[in-house]
Amino acid sequence: MILEVAIMKIKPELISKFEAVFPKAATISASTPGYISHELQRCVETRGKYFYMIRWESIEAHEVNFRQSPRRDEFRKLLGEFWAEPNFTEHFEPVTGDRI
Amino acid sequence: MILEVAIMKIKPELISKFEAVFPKAATISASTPGYISHELQRCVETRGKYFYMIRWESIEAHEVNFRQSPRRDEFRKLLGEFWAEPNFTEHFEPVTGDRI
Repeated sequence: MILEVAIMKIKPELISKFEAVFPKAATISASTPGYISHELQRCVETRGKYFYMIRWESIEAHEVNFRQSPRRDEFRKLLGEFWAEPNFTEHFEPVTGDRI
Repeated sequence: MILEVAIMKIKPELISKFEAVFPKAATISASTPGYISHELQRCVETRGKYFYMIRWESIEAHEVNFRQSPRRDEFRKLLGEFWAEPNFTEHFEPVTGDRI
């Protein structure tokens, strides 16, 4: 399992509208083969900063099934106007031995 | 519920040792009143970068019950030697209407 973390910075005047439109965009990601689940997390300290965290079965599910499909454009068409700057995205893998 | 994300950057030569010692440090956080769960996530793109993500019942659980207790020093005593730079920590709250 892979965790994608996309840091989104939203234009301050569009925050309410972003949160209202987001669920529709999330359904586009969720329709991708290899999608597992997602969370949208709002930063407490920095207004307009969000972590969009998606669990994928593999990096390919995100990089190929999502990014190299029309879904990416549909997603951007819905959310692009809200972004104050380009998203910063990284992938993570769980450290499985992280507890005793 | 609050999500704490601590970004840890680990000295390259100490990565294996960090992952081996981490579970012991995690038990210190886990013993804090208000702790719910945690994940340690290893960045795929940047070697030595980790997201330590902890779910708390409230910000106070982290800020008071953990940070203003001897647990913080115990935690740092175990992991401090591995950090290449100070951790960057933020809190997030779930956007509950994030799906249709």
